[in-house]
Amino acid sequence: MPAPFTTLADFAATLRAAPGPDDTARADAAERNSQLTKPPGALGRLEDLAQWYAGWRGDPRPRIAAPQVIVFAGNHGVTAQGVSAFPAEVTAQMVANFEHGGAAINQLAKAAGARMDVHALDLDRPTADFTQGPAMTEDEVVAALGVGWEAVDTDADLLVVGEMGIGNTTSAAAIAAALFGGTAADWAGRGTGVDDDGLARKVAAVAAGLTHHADALGDPLQVLRRLGGRELAAMAGAIAAARAHRIPVILDGFICTAAAATLARAHDGALDHAIAGHLSAEGAHRRLLDALGKVPLLDLGLRLGEGSGAALAIPILRAALACHSDMATFAEAGVAGG
Amino acid sequence: MPAPFTTLADFAATLRAAPGPDDTARADAAERNSQLTKPPGALGRLEDLAQWYAGWRGDPRPRIAAPQVIVFAGNHGVTAQGVSAFPAEVTAQMVANFEHGGAAINQLAKAAGARMDVHALDLDRPTADFTQGPAMTEDEVVAALGVGWEAVDTDADLLVVGEMGIGNTTSAAAIAAALFGGTAADWAGRGTGVDDDGLARKVAAVAAGLTHHADALGDPLQVLRRLGGRELAAMAGAIAAARAHRIPVILDGFICTAAAATLARAHDGALDHAIAGHLSAEGAHRRLLDALGKVPLLDLGLRLGEGSGAALAIPILRAALACHSDMATFAEAGVAGG
Repeated sequence: MPAPFTTLADFAATLRAAPGPDDTARADAAERNSQLTKPPGALGRLEDLAQWYAGWRGDPRPRIAAPQVIVFAGNHGVTAQGVSAFPAEVTAQMVANFEHGGAAINQLAKAAGARMDVHALDLDRPTADFTQGPAMTEDEVVAALGVGWEAVDTDADLLVVGEMGIGNTTSAAAIAAALFGGTAADWAGRGTGVDDDGLARKVAAVAAGLTHHADALGDPLQVLRRLGGRELAAMAGAIAAARAHRIPVILDGFICTAAAATLARAHDGALDHAIAGHLSAEGAHRRLLDALGKVPLLDLGLRLGEGSGAALAIPILRAALACHSDMATFAEAGVAGG
Repeated sequence: MPAPFTTLADFAATLRAAPGPDDTARADAAERNSQLTKPPGALGRLEDLAQWYAGWRGDPRPRIAAPQVIVFAGNHGVTAQGVSAFPAEVTAQMVANFEHGGAAINQLAKAAGARMDVHALDLDRPTADFTQGPAMTEDEVVAALGVGWEAVDTDADLLVVGEMGIGNTTSAAAIAAALFGGTAADWAGRGTGVDDDGLARKVAAVAAGLTHHADALGDPLQVLRRLGGRELAAMAGAIAAARAHRIPVILDGFICTAAAATLARAHDGALDHAIAGHLSAEGAHRRLLDALGKVPLLDLGLRLGEGSGAALAIPILRAALACHSDMATFAEAGVAGG
């Protein structure tokens, strides 16, 4: 589906115009839940997940049939500041690995029964170094939002977005700090494994970015443009497209959540169709999820990106819906206590 | 496979004779893990899970092909003390629900691609009320251990055991207190949802059981006989059989873990082939897992039993093995950084 925006102002209007959940379907799902053969509340968060999903899909007894995983890749000018343990060429090498089916996300998408797509965004044209100027022009960020928007299969019934981009935890930390306050050190972590010196350079780069762009950071979409990257903008565009089609989203780790957070700050409730798949081991992810009011489903120490933690959560959501939609009611089963 | 024991002393000897993991397979798995296309440690606990499983299966690149879920059901004389929110007839009604495919565990086993078996143990002959005497004779507990042992498919490559038995959180609380100390109130929780008065009766029943059997509680298998139930003994027997065949086990919630704990206390390391699938919302489960040194994979507020939390964790373990066994190495993918 073509992106319905050509400027950031258009995109903001698209967020404001997005649909909410179907309250009737959600209420019907809650009524069904109360009749299932189990003590009230005994399935814990699985019950909440099923009702949330039912509302967004407009179906009180839904199942997941067509999950989609999309991985976006981009390169970052801020790598000139020495913020990553890996060289920038690894982005393209990992894209080839995704395309050949060799990465973690390939296995996780397959295990979850999900379609997987890969979009590399202008890898030979890194964003500008945000310590020196805006990472992207308005045309560039709108184009990247559009790549994300158009990558979503409108027939999907669940979306996971992931990323690959050497340097992108630095970008995510700068975005998080710009959106939610705090110091550069509060938000910068070790990413794929920088040493103490690398971490110090990362903190300095984030701080420099916050200072350089200070006057423009009141607008969350300007934060995305100035401090973000193409793969972050594409994730934001895809999450917005999913909302337009009432496709529920599972958020991945720190970078995905930072990209998504620009939407929530641009328009209240813009992430109501999204849940947090996992808590990343990247230090500031918990702080970011707390700021968004999201409680992660999994906490297994992953810090890989690619959509890996979100894809790992797909079977949990699928299991929640299997219980909700396929269990017998007390009346059907002839069990006392309903 | 016929159970190789006819007395509790035989069973204890079986535990002592059980095999350990294949250290070579585990080391080979660790070596493979270090070459996969991801930063070191970036898959967190998934990496540990894969290597643990590889060791127990004796295969450095394993996959899960034949998981088995077994639900055992039993009835408890201690229900005479008014410890449950549901009448004892619900045990048999839920067994029928399992057999007709209508319960939560049916959906979760199916979603996980697992075979599911149900064994109802003498439902019309509840165990004796442990506040008045031993729950089972030695012949009865050995028979129940044997039902569990024989229920395990020796071709399975993963085992989940679950339970149904009105009153069995009271039995599990008494077992946990007997094995690990503390007061009855430390271990008794609300189970399927007793009110304050019910909880007080439960605490009183556990305390009475501990007092009545005080002289015999130094032997963990006597704890199982005197305070347990047939379905708890069957779970213990199944977990022991899995060990004999080096079939890894995912433990479920409070009741399953209490049954399993009798093995760990009877023989150090008897649960090394088992991981904790989830943290139950039943209050004392965390305390019990801590006592066993097990860190749960999931924490989603389930408190249903049936094996539900463990079955929900099967896809996590399967995903860990998919990553481990099917990802490309740095050399295969031509990615820098290996």
